Amino acid sequence: MKNTITIKDVAKKAGVSISTVSRVINDSKPVTDEVKQKVLDVIKETGYIPNPLARSLVTKRSQLIGVIVPEVSDSFVNEILNGIEEVAKMYDYEILLANTYSDKEQELKSINLLRAKQVEGIVMVCWKVEEDHINYIQNCGIPATYISKTARDYDIYTVSTSNKEATYDMTKYLIDKGHEDIAFIMTSKDDTVLERERLSGYEQALNERNIKLDESLIKYGGTTYEAGYESMKELLDEGIVPQAAFVTGDEAAIGAINAACDRGYKVPEDISVAGFNDVKIAKMYRPKLTTVYQPLYDMGAVAIRMVIKLINKEPLESKKIELPYKIIERESVITRK
Amino acid sequence: MKNTITIKDVAKKAGVSISTVSRVINDSKPVTDEVKQKVLDVIKETGYIPNPLARSLVTKRSQLIGVIVPEVSDSFVNEILNGIEEVAKMYDYEILLANTYSDKEQELKSINLLRAKQVEGIVMVCWKVEEDHINYIQNCGIPATYISKTARDYDIYTVSTSNKEATYDMTKYLIDKGHEDIAFIMTSKDDTVLERERLSGYEQALNERNIKLDESLIKYGGTTYEAGYESMKELLDEGIVPQAAFVTGDEAAIGAINAACDRGYKVPEDISVAGFNDVKIAKMYRPKLTTVYQPLYDMGAVAIRMVIKLINKEPLESKKIELPYKIIERESVITRK
Repeated sequence: MKNTITIKDVAKKAGVSISTVSRVINDSKPVTDEVKQKVLDVIKETGYIPNPLARSLVTKRSQLIGVIVPEVSDSFVNEILNGIEEVAKMYDYEILLANTYSDKEQELKSINLLRAKQVEGIVMVCWKVEEDHINYIQNCGIPATYISKTARDYDIYTVSTSNKEATYDMTKYLIDKGHEDIAFIMTSKDDTVLERERLSGYEQALNERNIKLDESLIKYGGTTYEAGYESMKELLDEGIVPQAAFVTGDEAAIGAINAACDRGYKVPEDISVAGFNDVKIAKMYRPKLTTVYQPLYDMGAVAIRMVIKLINKEPLESKKIELPYKIIERESVITRK
Repeated sequence: MKNTITIKDVAKKAGVSISTVSRVINDSKPVTDEVKQKVLDVIKETGYIPNPLARSLVTKRSQLIGVIVPEVSDSFVNEILNGIEEVAKMYDYEILLANTYSDKEQELKSINLLRAKQVEGIVMVCWKVEEDHINYIQNCGIPATYISKTARDYDIYTVSTSNKEATYDMTKYLIDKGHEDIAFIMTSKDDTVLERERLSGYEQALNERNIKLDESLIKYGGTTYEAGYESMKELLDEGIVPQAAFVTGDEAAIGAINAACDRGYKVPEDISVAGFNDVKIAKMYRPKLTTVYQPLYDMGAVAIRMVIKLINKEPLESKKIELPYKIIERESVITRK
């Protein structure tokens, strides 16, 4: 696929000025339909490659940002991606997306691929940050921001929410609704800053209301629907029927609800269940899920904005940005009388 | 980001053979941990770009396939993507993913971007095929396969399922379950081959059982949860309470169920609801959704395999591949007595 056609050739062949061709390509200023069609016909005919590459040849910049995600089908990832893409578009960047299936080797391959494709920056979304990869990206000199449960464990640019406060608030909310035996189903088994913060938020709320921490109510599952299902099933199999369950992920929370229902318990009548993240399915499921709203769209938007600032060497106020959360009351938690 | 370091330089600096470096990079044959670490250290230090680019310099091939999707967060798209990525990996291709938000201009930008990044082929997943873009891709000489509701309207490489038969079978299934007033909520308003086939499958099943077609039971909504919700709400607002509803998309089907429940109807007791596609949420939702299984993973897998065959100029049996479907009986449809 050779391409030696320039914007000049297109302009000449279409009998218009270079700036008119540029307007058509970038849709930047109005052009009559007739002229537009003529230019597009010539572009098609000549095989001219407009925009990104052409621009990058002039500016020596690719106007590309690479986004690496662990699982494109995860709802948490999806909503972050929406924020990333929207802001990229605003700043006239194109996105190259690489999916790693949380595979370490694939993640390294993706970094190399994006690097070879000359991305100007990287937004890394991953469940667990690889220290090797942080160093590698740094050595390559590519600006990067991270959205990850473990990102705050490292001296890198990160976007997150105040997990400790959010967990504390939701636990307090459940206690205020009259629940005492509150199962805490965590979506990770790793000993990370985030998991420690969440656990300490949960503990603090219990302590303040003089509720003794019961280790048997704490489960370390995983982020998936299946993991939430298994954790609740285990609890019930152990003869433990909590008054409420706080699951730190929405899909896992729905798994937990289904496990309870499959055992003949009603949610929220017998067991109240709260989630975390407020992804799309939280509103689609019935009972609608009471959950902690994490501004996932905003997290994606801020992360890419940070990368663009890093690329342009604009000042950044902080390496670690925390965005506000809020508790969304829906139907899956009721007041215990 | 200049890169003049070759695999030879890395081998020399690490004091190992070129094939050892290659083994480490490709993880192709066992290497001792010590040697592996030494090679990785040198790679990091020198900023050598391994694998895809290096290989493409030798073979003059990018080993890249571009995948264009309309909405990365749609469950239908997700499952297709899983199939695409898995097979790409098997054949040692990397994927560049571009998200268009079903925006025509963005789709053209994506094609140009992928072309500029020298992809060897394209898998296009879109709700509606743009004839201009088909021609454009063809003119560029890039092999492409399409997965789209409207793909069968054009002379291009496509992967789909037998929609007419699937719709006929599900309608027949609902009739066999004792339902006569069967609402048909379509996920597209466009007059395409697919929509005509679906409608004719629905009609044929009714005809065979001497059920008169009632136009007021047919709604043209859209693919989303919200569209399904609105369609069912409209029916009920018009005073029409169908015995069953067949919605040609799972998220839309769940929207329809929720609309019915919000009006005080029970699903499946008052209204049975069937979906189409069998995406992840069909199993997560309660009642579990009775639906038509479309082999989305396989469709993605076959589509990329076709593209790889086209790239390698291997023979293809057909331009249009249809994969089998099946009806999945779950909980959202019951027998009407």
